[in-house]
Amino acid sequence: MTPSEVDDKDCYFRYYADVYVHLELIKDKSRMDAYKSAVAFHSDFIEGKVVLDVGCGTGILSILCAKAGARKVYAVDASEIALQAQSIVKDNNLSDIITVLHGRVEDVTIDEQVDVIISEWMGYMLLQECMLESIVTARDRWLKPSGLLLPSSATVNSLRNYFILPLPSCTWLHSPALRYFDNIGFWSDVDGIDMSALIPLAKKDAFSTPSVETIRSESILGKAHQVKKIDIYSVSNPELESVTSKFMFKSYISAPLHGFVFWFETEFSQKKPKHSGVPSPILSTAPEVLIDCDDLIQLEKGQTIEGSVTITQNDMKQRFLVIRLQYASGGESYVKVVSFL
Amino acid sequence: MTPSEVDDKDCYFRYYADVYVHLELIKDKSRMDAYKSAVAFHSDFIEGKVVLDVGCGTGILSILCAKAGARKVYAVDASEIALQAQSIVKDNNLSDIITVLHGRVEDVTIDEQVDVIISEWMGYMLLQECMLESIVTARDRWLKPSGLLLPSSATVNSLRNYFILPLPSCTWLHSPALRYFDNIGFWSDVDGIDMSALIPLAKKDAFSTPSVETIRSESILGKAHQVKKIDIYSVSNPELESVTSKFMFKSYISAPLHGFVFWFETEFSQKKPKHSGVPSPILSTAPEVLIDCDDLIQLEKGQTIEGSVTITQNDMKQRFLVIRLQYASGGESYVKVVSFL
Repeated sequence: MTPSEVDDKDCYFRYYADVYVHLELIKDKSRMDAYKSAVAFHSDFIEGKVVLDVGCGTGILSILCAKAGARKVYAVDASEIALQAQSIVKDNNLSDIITVLHGRVEDVTIDEQVDVIISEWMGYMLLQECMLESIVTARDRWLKPSGLLLPSSATVNSLRNYFILPLPSCTWLHSPALRYFDNIGFWSDVDGIDMSALIPLAKKDAFSTPSVETIRSESILGKAHQVKKIDIYSVSNPELESVTSKFMFKSYISAPLHGFVFWFETEFSQKKPKHSGVPSPILSTAPEVLIDCDDLIQLEKGQTIEGSVTITQNDMKQRFLVIRLQYASGGESYVKVVSFL
Repeated sequence: MTPSEVDDKDCYFRYYADVYVHLELIKDKSRMDAYKSAVAFHSDFIEGKVVLDVGCGTGILSILCAKAGARKVYAVDASEIALQAQSIVKDNNLSDIITVLHGRVEDVTIDEQVDVIISEWMGYMLLQECMLESIVTARDRWLKPSGLLLPSSATVNSLRNYFILPLPSCTWLHSPALRYFDNIGFWSDVDGIDMSALIPLAKKDAFSTPSVETIRSESILGKAHQVKKIDIYSVSNPELESVTSKFMFKSYISAPLHGFVFWFETEFSQKKPKHSGVPSPILSTAPEVLIDCDDLIQLEKGQTIEGSVTITQNDMKQRFLVIRLQYASGGESYVKVVSFL
């Protein structure tokens, strides 16, 4: 590990010592509901078993598991928040069930195999701040062959949104269309002053990093594309270093292509799902991650866009992503590279 | 100048090379309208005169002055945005009137005295990123004795907001009351889990820096207090290093004191205002800067709060502020120190 990597990790774990970050996670209702459903769905399995919570934060998932009847829960976190998790466990009279371990999951010692590994590890575009590597490490080290992983699989998807006319409604305030007009088109004529000299820089500023927002279904231009499905029971860490996927889609309608949207889904099922007809809980994310094109492409109905996307974990800063988009349509090709903190 | 100061200044000027920053300034309608009114109000004076625009950014104020009939405008900016300002001036066919100088106003050379200095220098709490020092330097160096400063005076004010019950309306989404409940009270009971161990840390996180938002008049608990009025025609730089003001107010009603609000006003008048009965343009800011109390103080109607506020420019990072609030009520005293980037 180089010194800069040490710094990055330090910084990362310090970030999670901020209470505010945990507030955001716990207030993400769809995320919390998915975990609550998953624990409830698997409560027969969890009852009387040993659970490992990787990156436990405030300990809320450990507490859910303890309340669902786990015999023993190991709650591990490298951030200072582990000290608070310890107090919270005590305040909820669960110290006899939950043991909080303050350290990286790669470094702590657990003296038994576990039945369940639960973790809330998913970053933007799924792989951002890829804590999944730590889950894989914990899985290989401690999970019993028959054990349960929550979540059990995760899929990164991509779909495309189109350029929509701005409407004077608050729902559009953060739409890609309004963002484009607001940040770029704005400079063409500022109260009669020609400030279009700023447009190239404004494009660079506005589109150099992905944005995170919720896309309305009306904005979707083509069929969703599956970039990568990860089976957490079997994935290996080298597989996560770089993911490439080719795509091809036909536009549903005539509209300008504004950019690409990425989102992910996670499932919470057993290694060999029981075919009971009851689907295991899933979590599908919103807001999504948007990567805007620098220049709009006017598409005709049925026009194809072909290309590929590569998502690479940055070697220098392990928890950061670089996304490389390559796409072509109507005889023109485009390349767009962005990085995601 | 120490190396860290050099770095800070570099960083500051690089920040202003981002187009987005200028977009925000130009889109701040009340700010732009105040400058437009000021230029229109003084157009008789500006006509045929020499103008200096300190920190010209995209050059928009220089262009306003040129269009108002200035004979010559010097537009100075240390950031790379000066290169764009140059293009914008050319695109608007004003190169014969406006000369863009890329450098700090302390370093550039202007071979004549000027009739007008215009500048948009006001940061949060007026003194944040205190470019006013550069205006004072430029004034002493180049402004004719009869010259015009736009703006001409600036006042930092403080008033108090109270704790209001949260209402399920989007206007309250960012109210201090909701922020308190959302960030602090939230942890008392999270779906039946006692997470109150996080409250002290959550308070520290939530209230360690001022926030910037618009306060509704219903939230005001007492009469506004003038912290400092600055006459830009006569102010000296040492006066700006630290400002202290004592305050005393009586609460209008029985309500919890939630925090203190700071805002500023600028005027655009001549050194000796003409008593024509037409007031010179002013700019009054919203959003305001809020400094939240760590703990609420329940006030009775007519109860007094006494205290003092000191706003100090940080020596190490010249453009940053430290705000020290000291206040007492009902036999209790409080001290709150925050810093503002």
